[in-house]
Amino acid sequence: MAEDSQNWVLMVTAQTPTNIAVIKYWGKRDETLILPVNDSISVTLDPNHLCTTTTVAVSPAFNQDRMWLNGKEISLSGGRFQSCLREIRARACDVEDTKKGVKITKEDWSKLHVHIASYNNFPTAAGLASSAAGFACLVYALGKLMNVKEDNSQLSAIARQGSGSACRSLFGGFVKWIMGKEENGSDSLAVQLADEKHWDDLVIVIAVVSSRQKETSSTSGMRETVETSLLLQHRAKEVVPKRILQMEEAIRNRDFASFSQLTCTDSNQFHAVCLDTSPPIFYMNDTSHRIISIVEKWNRSEEAPQVAYTFDAGPNAVLIARNRKAATILIQKLLYYFPPNSDDLDSYIIGDKSIAKDAGINGIQDIEALPPPSEIKDKIPSQKYKGDVSYFICTRPGRGPAVLSDESQALLNSENGLPK
Amino acid sequence: MAEDSQNWVLMVTAQTPTNIAVIKYWGKRDETLILPVNDSISVTLDPNHLCTTTTVAVSPAFNQDRMWLNGKEISLSGGRFQSCLREIRARACDVEDTKKGVKITKEDWSKLHVHIASYNNFPTAAGLASSAAGFACLVYALGKLMNVKEDNSQLSAIARQGSGSACRSLFGGFVKWIMGKEENGSDSLAVQLADEKHWDDLVIVIAVVSSRQKETSSTSGMRETVETSLLLQHRAKEVVPKRILQMEEAIRNRDFASFSQLTCTDSNQFHAVCLDTSPPIFYMNDTSHRIISIVEKWNRSEEAPQVAYTFDAGPNAVLIARNRKAATILIQKLLYYFPPNSDDLDSYIIGDKSIAKDAGINGIQDIEALPPPSEIKDKIPSQKYKGDVSYFICTRPGRGPAVLSDESQALLNSENGLPK
Repeated sequence: MAEDSQNWVLMVTAQTPTNIAVIKYWGKRDETLILPVNDSISVTLDPNHLCTTTTVAVSPAFNQDRMWLNGKEISLSGGRFQSCLREIRARACDVEDTKKGVKITKEDWSKLHVHIASYNNFPTAAGLASSAAGFACLVYALGKLMNVKEDNSQLSAIARQGSGSACRSLFGGFVKWIMGKEENGSDSLAVQLADEKHWDDLVIVIAVVSSRQKETSSTSGMRETVETSLLLQHRAKEVVPKRILQMEEAIRNRDFASFSQLTCTDSNQFHAVCLDTSPPIFYMNDTSHRIISIVEKWNRSEEAPQVAYTFDAGPNAVLIARNRKAATILIQKLLYYFPPNSDDLDSYIIGDKSIAKDAGINGIQDIEALPPPSEIKDKIPSQKYKGDVSYFICTRPGRGPAVLSDESQALLNSENGLPK
Repeated sequence: MAEDSQNWVLMVTAQTPTNIAVIKYWGKRDETLILPVNDSISVTLDPNHLCTTTTVAVSPAFNQDRMWLNGKEISLSGGRFQSCLREIRARACDVEDTKKGVKITKEDWSKLHVHIASYNNFPTAAGLASSAAGFACLVYALGKLMNVKEDNSQLSAIARQGSGSACRSLFGGFVKWIMGKEENGSDSLAVQLADEKHWDDLVIVIAVVSSRQKETSSTSGMRETVETSLLLQHRAKEVVPKRILQMEEAIRNRDFASFSQLTCTDSNQFHAVCLDTSPPIFYMNDTSHRIISIVEKWNRSEEAPQVAYTFDAGPNAVLIARNRKAATILIQKLLYYFPPNSDDLDSYIIGDKSIAKDAGINGIQDIEALPPPSEIKDKIPSQKYKGDVSYFICTRPGRGPAVLSDESQALLNSENGLPK
């Protein structure tokens, strides 16, 4: 421990991406350890557009563990936070900061308290897997602070205990969460299938869908599905294992046709088992259905699929375009059907704005001038659904967690360890 | 054949109910013979509110088979009509009408042509199984005209070849369509489980839901599900057989709790396999989902379920209330959330209007005065969805096919066999 003073604060700031499953995780075989009923595969999203930044700090002056999420203090008493803190502390090692003259031994960590500040660069309420990026970042940052020697896969098994899908945010690119067999969950962890450079044609457009409904949380939703759906076990045991192998091969070969077909059918099957739950769970709404129809109609009008869709536990569509060309056409089609409610285009298309520019969309008048998608020509003039999409985020597959060494990006004050 | 004249016309008019499946039929193992992948069970709806009336006529003056549906001539060249006509003709027997001095022998029928006029007392486009009632009525009426000796179960195997669910409209009350094992379909037919008097507490409210979407026809929808869903076979082979036994027992014992639970979960599972189809099929929309939520919330707030819901290949809700008391509360709740778009209450609640009267609804002002359902009290004031339901039909389980002897109800002119 520090020899002479209680005044030092040691800090680490890290950034962790969110991820979107293309073979879905739905259903736990162990609620406490968060062990899933099947493997899942995800694509990591570019942290430039969607990520969590977390600063963790330790100081002998702290008298309890505390956490601030998006600037507001939240309780750490929940079992999930406690699991992550306990597991990380148990793996802490000696730390020395010669500049500050601080030395913390392995044993000291059990007596020291931490402060944690976390911030999402996207709306938490938008249903964009903020808890995945959040727990991944918490575990990753604490691991760095405490000089934990475990690799990211081993860290992922800790993050998993915070939020199942968090384990997949410990890597960039394409990630598999292996369900594991052990009762203690030690082999239920994430591995990287390929990094983000392996398949860098892909472009991702997220449609954040307006919703008036309060949604079932994924925790209680998947518990109810496990308890009541007569289709879930068949999905988990018979359908998913084959799809995992096919999806791994599709990613390996950058085979967009297979990737797209597997992604869409697995998203639909996940929502099917939600509907087979008693009482039924509806995450998709009419707008979600419309987006699916637009994509399906377009894909079928082309020789090969152009875009895959997938929906998590909410109405938002995550659309994965085979390349930049397909993404520009996609954004034109989406803007045709879902024009913005206001003139503020800048807040209607966020993230990588160059996609919209490439699509010739520089202002509202460009949206108004969009022709109807060719695949619906000669049919009855199609309806438009102004206001049914809140905004679009343009992004791409991205990298895994990283430490931010620039202290100006820290969320805690280096003097007192409190939020800046 | 008639000895001396070509001028006679022999006619029969029959009325056949529609039915709503409570254990669903979805998926054929033989497309031509219309053989299903699982048994199904339905409730026959009171023909006073929903039925098809069909007049069939024969005359040596007719030079071809012709049909009029709701006053408009339609083609009989389709395979399904031809199957029904061929099968019924093959079973025709001697017919003698002494009053008219007409004698038709078994052999004559193959040379005689028929005229058919059919009329639904409900909107054909409303997605209320008009083809079920229609084919059942066609086969039943022709069977009477041609003095076919087969019983209604045997006739149901013919109606089945027109429209699968038509076979269940040959009986009143509670009906099971046995899928059968024979390749020729001879044992795929309907049997009555109990007549409509067996459980006469039940009251049925149908919410005809406004929809802007064109729906997938059930014929192509179920074909696509059979071809692409990885969950359908599990449903057909593992789930439905057990549910059929449980549903038969629930009906036998008038056990509404079991009946309701089976009805709701089976409807949801049918829509789940539709969603598991590639491309996915959505029959329910946001309004359907809302109705489910209203019913689920209410059922869970009571000691025992009050209402079961079931949805066919469209967004309309068929709600089965345990008794008249529950039905009046149900109609209050539905009118609270879904007030009519216009002041014309008379066309907003059709069928058995006494249910609304019992619920104290005599005019628009009574709807406006309805208090929020008690189960949502203390929560945020609930939204209303004016215009999202087109109209309600109040009805009950009803009787099977019947011959209408009153000639004024015939749809064809007894002189020339043309539509009146």
